[in-house]
Amino acid sequence: MNPDQIKKLLLGVKTGKTSVKEALSALKGFSQEDLGFAVLDHHRHLRQGFPEVIFCQGKNDRQILALFRHSLNRHPKILATRVRPETFEAIRREFPDARYNELGKTVAAVKPREETREKGLVLIITAGTSDISVAEEARETALILGSRVETLYDVGVAGIHRILDKKKALERARVLIVIAGMDGVLPSVIGGFSDRPLIAVPTSQGYGTAFNGIAPLLTMLNSCASGIGVMNIDNGFGAAVLAHRINTLK
Amino acid sequence: MNPDQIKKLLLGVKTGKTSVKEALSALKGFSQEDLGFAVLDHHRHLRQGFPEVIFCQGKNDRQILALFRHSLNRHPKILATRVRPETFEAIRREFPDARYNELGKTVAAVKPREETREKGLVLIITAGTSDISVAEEARETALILGSRVETLYDVGVAGIHRILDKKKALERARVLIVIAGMDGVLPSVIGGFSDRPLIAVPTSQGYGTAFNGIAPLLTMLNSCASGIGVMNIDNGFGAAVLAHRINTLK
Amino acid sequence: MNPDQIKKLLLGVKTGKTSVKEALSALKGFSQEDLGFAVLDHHRHLRQGFPEVIFCQGKNDRQILALFRHSLNRHPKILATRVRPETFEAIRREFPDARYNELGKTVAAVKPREETREKGLVLIITAGTSDISVAEEARETALILGSRVETLYDVGVAGIHRILDKKKALERARVLIVIAGMDGVLPSVIGGFSDRPLIAVPTSQGYGTAFNGIAPLLTMLNSCASGIGVMNIDNGFGAAVLAHRINTLK
Amino acid sequence: MNPDQIKKLLLGVKTGKTSVKEALSALKGFSQEDLGFAVLDHHRHLRQGFPEVIFCQGKNDRQILALFRHSLNRHPKILATRVRPETFEAIRREFPDARYNELGKTVAAVKPREETREKGLVLIITAGTSDISVAEEARETALILGSRVETLYDVGVAGIHRILDKKKALERARVLIVIAGMDGVLPSVIGGFSDRPLIAVPTSQGYGTAFNGIAPLLTMLNSCASGIGVMNIDNGFGAAVLAHRINTLK
Amino acid sequence: MNPDQIKKLLLGVKTGKTSVKEALSALKGFSQEDLGFAVLDHHRHLRQGFPEVIFCQGKNDRQILALFRHSLNRHPKILATRVRPETFEAIRREFPDARYNELGKTVAAVKPREETREKGLVLIITAGTSDISVAEEARETALILGSRVETLYDVGVAGIHRILDKKKALERARVLIVIAGMDGVLPSVIGGFSDRPLIAVPTSQGYGTAFNGIAPLLTMLNSCASGIGVMNIDNGFGAAVLAHRINTLK
Amino acid sequence: MNPDQIKKLLLGVKTGKTSVKEALSALKGFSQEDLGFAVLDHHRHLRQGFPEVIFCQGKNDRQILALFRHSLNRHPKILATRVRPETFEAIRREFPDARYNELGKTVAAVKPREETREKGLVLIITAGTSDISVAEEARETALILGSRVETLYDVGVAGIHRILDKKKALERARVLIVIAGMDGVLPSVIGGFSDRPLIAVPTSQGYGTAFNGIAPLLTMLNSCASGIGVMNIDNGFGAAVLAHRINTLK
Amino acid sequence: MNPDQIKKLLLGVKTGKTSVKEALSALKGFSQEDLGFAVLDHHRHLRQGFPEVIFCQGKNDRQILALFRHSLNRHPKILATRVRPETFEAIRREFPDARYNELGKTVAAVKPREETREKGLVLIITAGTSDISVAEEARETALILGSRVETLYDVGVAGIHRILDKKKALERARVLIVIAGMDGVLPSVIGGFSDRPLIAVPTSQGYGTAFNGIAPLLTMLNSCASGIGVMNIDNGFGAAVLAHRINTLK
Amino acid sequence: MNPDQIKKLLLGVKTGKTSVKEALSALKGFSQEDLGFAVLDHHRHLRQGFPEVIFCQGKNDRQILALFRHSLNRHPKILATRVRPETFEAIRREFPDARYNELGKTVAAVKPREETREKGLVLIITAGTSDISVAEEARETALILGSRVETLYDVGVAGIHRILDKKKALERARVLIVIAGMDGVLPSVIGGFSDRPLIAVPTSQGYGTAFNGIAPLLTMLNSCASGIGVMNIDNGFGAAVLAHRINTLK
Repeated sequence: MNPDQIKKLLLGVKTGKTSVKEALSALKGFSQEDLGFAVLDHHRHLRQGFPEVIFCQGKNDRQILALFRHSLNRHPKILATRVRPETFEAIRREFPDARYNELGKTVAAVKPREETREKGLVLIITAGTSDISVAEEARETALILGSRVETLYDVGVAGIHRILDKKKALERARVLIVIAGMDGVLPSVIGGFSDRPLIAVPTSQGYGTAFNGIAPLLTMLNSCASGIGVMNIDNGFGAAVLAHRINTLK
Repeated sequence: MNPDQIKKLLLGVKTGKTSVKEALSALKGFSQEDLGFAVLDHHRHLRQGFPEVIFCQGKNDRQILALFRHSLNRHPKILATRVRPETFEAIRREFPDARYNELGKTVAAVKPREETREKGLVLIITAGTSDISVAEEARETALILGSRVETLYDVGVAGIHRILDKKKALERARVLIVIAGMDGVLPSVIGGFSDRPLIAVPTSQGYGTAFNGIAPLLTMLNSCASGIGVMNIDNGFGAAVLAHRINTLK
Repeated sequence: MNPDQIKKLLLGVKTGKTSVKEALSALKGFSQEDLGFAVLDHHRHLRQGFPEVIFCQGKNDRQILALFRHSLNRHPKILATRVRPETFEAIRREFPDARYNELGKTVAAVKPREETREKGLVLIITAGTSDISVAEEARETALILGSRVETLYDVGVAGIHRILDKKKALERARVLIVIAGMDGVLPSVIGGFSDRPLIAVPTSQGYGTAFNGIAPLLTMLNSCASGIGVMNIDNGFGAAVLAHRINTLK
Repeated sequence: MNPDQIKKLLLGVKTGKTSVKEALSALKGFSQEDLGFAVLDHHRHLRQGFPEVIFCQGKNDRQILALFRHSLNRHPKILATRVRPETFEAIRREFPDARYNELGKTVAAVKPREETREKGLVLIITAGTSDISVAEEARETALILGSRVETLYDVGVAGIHRILDKKKALERARVLIVIAGMDGVLPSVIGGFSDRPLIAVPTSQGYGTAFNGIAPLLTMLNSCASGIGVMNIDNGFGAAVLAHRINTLK
Repeated sequence: MNPDQIKKLLLGVKTGKTSVKEALSALKGFSQEDLGFAVLDHHRHLRQGFPEVIFCQGKNDRQILALFRHSLNRHPKILATRVRPETFEAIRREFPDARYNELGKTVAAVKPREETREKGLVLIITAGTSDISVAEEARETALILGSRVETLYDVGVAGIHRILDKKKALERARVLIVIAGMDGVLPSVIGGFSDRPLIAVPTSQGYGTAFNGIAPLLTMLNSCASGIGVMNIDNGFGAAVLAHRINTLK
Repeated sequence: MNPDQIKKLLLGVKTGKTSVKEALSALKGFSQEDLGFAVLDHHRHLRQGFPEVIFCQGKNDRQILALFRHSLNRHPKILATRVRPETFEAIRREFPDARYNELGKTVAAVKPREETREKGLVLIITAGTSDISVAEEARETALILGSRVETLYDVGVAGIHRILDKKKALERARVLIVIAGMDGVLPSVIGGFSDRPLIAVPTSQGYGTAFNGIAPLLTMLNSCASGIGVMNIDNGFGAAVLAHRINTLK
Repeated sequence: MNPDQIKKLLLGVKTGKTSVKEALSALKGFSQEDLGFAVLDHHRHLRQGFPEVIFCQGKNDRQILALFRHSLNRHPKILATRVRPETFEAIRREFPDARYNELGKTVAAVKPREETREKGLVLIITAGTSDISVAEEARETALILGSRVETLYDVGVAGIHRILDKKKALERARVLIVIAGMDGVLPSVIGGFSDRPLIAVPTSQGYGTAFNGIAPLLTMLNSCASGIGVMNIDNGFGAAVLAHRINTLK
Repeated sequence: MNPDQIKKLLLGVKTGKTSVKEALSALKGFSQEDLGFAVLDHHRHLRQGFPEVIFCQGKNDRQILALFRHSLNRHPKILATRVRPETFEAIRREFPDARYNELGKTVAAVKPREETREKGLVLIITAGTSDISVAEEARETALILGSRVETLYDVGVAGIHRILDKKKALERARVLIVIAGMDGVLPSVIGGFSDRPLIAVPTSQGYGTAFNGIAPLLTMLNSCASGIGVMNIDNGFGAAVLAHRINTLK
């Protein structure tokens, strides 16, 4: 059901051709589709600006493919995250246009004309090379949502002069996503001289007392630089959703 | 040093009246003032849009008063957080205009003409009555930064119909701050039907396995509603700073 | 030893034909059978309404098969949980009627006439698709114990209107089992408008700060909706046992 | 608004005297009353069988008294939990009939004719003397909800024969609440020979590695006795709510 | 120092040429043999009653074999714990008399005449079938140290009558080793009616909040039954060493 | 009821003067006395060699005094632990012979002729001065149980030569109780050269990452010196009970 | 051994009557003095370069004063840490020259001519004002040990330019002690551009997820800047000891 | 760019041949080289005495090889840590001189004349055989940095006399690195009689409550021996960097 169909339905309500109850039930019946193991929520595109995103961790290939089929029939764009390479093979056989981001483990299937970008820029920064996979999940998500994205990778604090050199890039951005594992120090440093909304994502990189991301998570939650919003460990997707919402505020 | 003074200084540089070195040192000497136990950073007002906020926890009254004196001489507005009632008594004796928020434990000393508000609305929501002290810290902070603020208190999930009734208030807001202790469920529920940037603050309210805020913190970090930025436990101040930055994006 | 045999024995005691000591020893000797590595407790069927349930995690196939053989000789019904697919292959070779639930990882071997159901309904609800394996363990357990079961899968909080649509189903049930991973919010939401006994099961689904189920466990223990009984992480079996006990209260 | 008033309103709807919209708004407007710091939910009595219970931890006396006044005007019974002795003094001055349970820290204000009891028995058992305060919170809650209650205190496992002597009491009960701190072993032992629905409550009693209730909480969640529903640490109130719901199932 | 040197030294003692004190000091210096990656402590047999026990976890096969060779040359008995099956294959090729306990993962190489047993009995009890591997590590250790051992497996608390039936076995023992995973309740129950020294070993059996043995560890440390000595998770070896020391006290 | 009374009763059973049922009920009725808030277990003296020990933490003075009265009527000796100074004042007013150990916070009321000591020696060792309070709880407990006790205080590892000087004292002992906070290293060091049964008690002394005793607890559970039995944090009482049981083994 | 005996011994050495070896061994035996509750180790001054430092936490005033008296008789300098103000009052009454550092909570009693300083500089840096108490404990310790000390307080990362301004001070130092609470970011930043040995001390400052110092501790242990040695939370004393050892390396 | 080239550049600046801006840009452009996924920092060799060390965990072979190529072109020496054996195979194919340390998992590529050693000695000590892999990472790092290194492996505390025998080796060293898993006791023991700067490294060796290195980490942070600097779990590399910095202090 596209926006035109919805408008038509609502006009029917206004003119009395359709009762409120009928309209309601039509909208609702449409907006949720029961696949047995999952309930697709097609209306979220209207409600929240994006379609059913398929989080593939904990689902088997059969379930993922079924979700792909039902979603693609109705939405102009779709995104799958945490996609195992084997799963992508299965997807590609059926949807040859699907595009896989190996580092970010995302699959995107987007129809071209949706690709117009917001004017605002989401800047994604990582402290190290190993944080890039989370950054790529964020990048793919922000892109499919419609934001412009730039990236600055491996500008970690060990050489703080590296970041200071990048001040101009920071000023160009409307929202920052800063991703770091191990000591998670980078958001504090960047937050110390930038006044942009800053979203911090801890990663599970590191060893020993990094505790799979707890150390950088705590660093970020306790940041002396005020006003940093923190995401779950490795949650590049969520960071991009929040960044896009901020980026598209009118 | 006000913007005019700074402009003058920079013109002096341009015209050669002031050497770059002199100007730099003037700006630097001014922007940081060493009190022995603390370094005031007067330039943050320019850099980040707000003055030295005095976080009073862990400082004694003598230190806090000294910081008040030095800050008020230079800034049009000032905010102190985590202020003990006894400390406020000491402040009031010297600064009779200072205003204390008993629940939020903040002290604000603002010169009137700064009170012009941003058009965007920051809506602060709490799940329970006991979360209000964190909400009030956020409210005072957002107000002094210059945002418009409304509040919805005690609309917790135990009666979910309460929130559903408030949908219109949610739609009026530009940014949401959702504050909850115990199970920390409220941000997930609100995030389920709102597409506003949502900042979640866990509180230390509750007992037993609430673990002084760890339980709601984890709930918020793992929220099934995508794109929620999470703050440290009880960090109403930080939530307001982030909300204000988002609210004032052009 | 069936109820008739037991009655006969007790009559013997009453009439003096059998000494108390003999009877006791007969009952006891019977009720526990030592397999070397495990003591079967055949009397639990009488004492608690169900036979030795075989928890297969941590046992090897040889041990599991031995337990199957001894149990099936004496009980009308038997259930094995946490059964690896390979183990089921070994079981099926010897017990071709055994039925495997792939998602729930249970094996049931039930003699038909035991299948009469309680009138009360146990309703099993999951927040997401990945929680279904726990739900299926619960469903198989409740069924073999003799309860009627219905399921509602993937009605998570991200779209809270989904649950509100299901109110009627909730009212039809006598007991609710609500299963959720990640933020574990669903039991709080359902508990907010239902007055049924509600059993909450956290699952190990999610990543990062979900901490393999600790996050939803804490959410459930701290639920603002009063009166929710919480089970161990992924413990669908235990939830069903408690639900069945409640369901069969006279 | 009492049931008669509600019936009258609904009849008005049926006969057309009152529009559905008016009725709805009347019911809703009534059911929630905004006190500024708290939203009273008067309809929960209808929805869930009990009135606004006032959880006093984290609220000041002024707030608690305001909640008392508003609630007592409309409900036949009211319960406050976690009441500090000083707070009770303030309550008693205004409501001389209020009854304080010193150990359980509850205040009950019940109008007499509501005191008819359910036939089923809720049996509350504690392992030690120091667990009694939690037990008394549970007892007061179950009583005000309308259940019959008996108690067995200090029957801990150190002398397991103590419990075995109490088997008859266990059989008389319809639901069991078993409360224990330190090693939290008692629910496992009782669950080993009883088939009643069993609700386990860990307490913060003990020292060192009892970790304020984490040790008994884990014991209960991992109990080898199947089908035990676990509550938050010290949550006697929640245990009673669940027990009462089970007890009053038809 | 080679055997010839030792002989020479001892002869010196016999003939009075060397004082006992000199010889002792010479021997102590000798008692450590440097293998580059490990220092064998051959004198511990004298000092503490048992030889270098080879803890194989974290060592590679080459290292383990080297330790076997050096130890067997000098000690009447030797024990290796945490031995992977592949490692045992390597050991057996060189030491065909070595005996592998598959469940306990121990390898024992004992010269026959050392097998005289202490009079006292060490009784090893497990709660479940899956705890047996820890029990077997303990059994093999106690046997090679020279204690008499009996075992009672799978007498868990779910059916507490099982244990009560075993009272006589408990009374026959001089020391008890009680091994349990999940809720770890068994030592508390046995400690409630036995006055023997009781050593409790938590196991990593269970799932979810068993946290790989933390739950039973806490239960045991907090046991209401006084005087229980607790070992590290899965540490059957250590339990046997302590039990043997107690068992052989004169 | 003293042993003579019990013998008399049993003779009555043998000669038929007393039925088994009467005797049983007499013994049972006697052995447990219900004080409302606590069940005294007078038979434990026979069963486990010591009377009801009153653990005062979590009990109020009224309860403690009631337990004292009932216990002293029947037992030759009694011990209270974790006694607040104020509580002792209340005890002394009624029982002027009660003896308070200020450091250990124990109260002992012993009739003189019970003071005969076991031949074996329990040696109690502390690492630091601040661990002495736990050591004194252990000492008082071991003394009242009837063991001989010696102490070595403040022989911590910071100067390891201190311990090496004490080797002779260690050899004289039959059982060792080693108490340490902070790094908890002492039991490992002593266990390295002594073959006595060694009971380790972590204390809550220290700061920061000592985590109120978790650090030394973990050190002790992981000790490289085999065969150390570990107690709960600060549990001097339990250590003495275990030490006494070992000490009195025949 | 009193001073006279020591003199006599040393004279014996001078005159050749006593060999150095004999004297040394005699002195060692003497070097420990048993106060009942503590063993003074007077020789550590020789062994490790500093006297018995009195850690006052967990000791009562009587014990602390006794330690003062015994130490001052023999050592040219003495330091007490974690001294409560009341305790200092008691100390001053007896030792009027003792000097109290209120922020650092140390008491120093030093004889003047010991005050010669090492040439190397220990630079102590704090992130915030509230970390100063730990810094002062470190400063007093380093001073009494004989190092030169400078301090840089409140140069936290929120304004990173502050630190960059201090590069010269960093280069002048031989060892750095960097102290920070909350996010603990400062050592990472300084370690990023300095090659001095850097000792990091987390403090218990902060709130919520700072977890009393766990957050900065983890940040420091995981620092991307290599080669940072980390101390226990709030352990200014230990940091100074290590700094002094490094500073005095020849 | 070698030191000569840099000197030349700076002279150019002095003589006016090169503008400051040009020089700056030359230095900066050189010092950081952007590989897309990583920013090489070639100036660290000057700033901190060592080149880009390649931490291979979390990087793929392609990335590691690219880093090798770029680094080797400019630096006289290079070190890679946490190198998987497969990765080394790929490295060796291209750089046949690269040397792999199998236990330490490091790859070193050093040009010969850099091998001159510092006079000071870094002594690396391990408690057990399984800690050697961490020790070898430290040894390779210290060697490539230019320090002299000796090792003492498997001198754990279980036989404390082993360490006491090594006192002379300890005195010869300028800095100590002490590595231990399980109880982590060794640094405390060595720190008790040595006054050298001591760096402690916990390892993830052990099982159960060793919690992958948390137990020895806590032991070391809480060490009663003052002045021990602690590293992250298994961080042999960082320990060597700190040791080398201390060792090369003038």
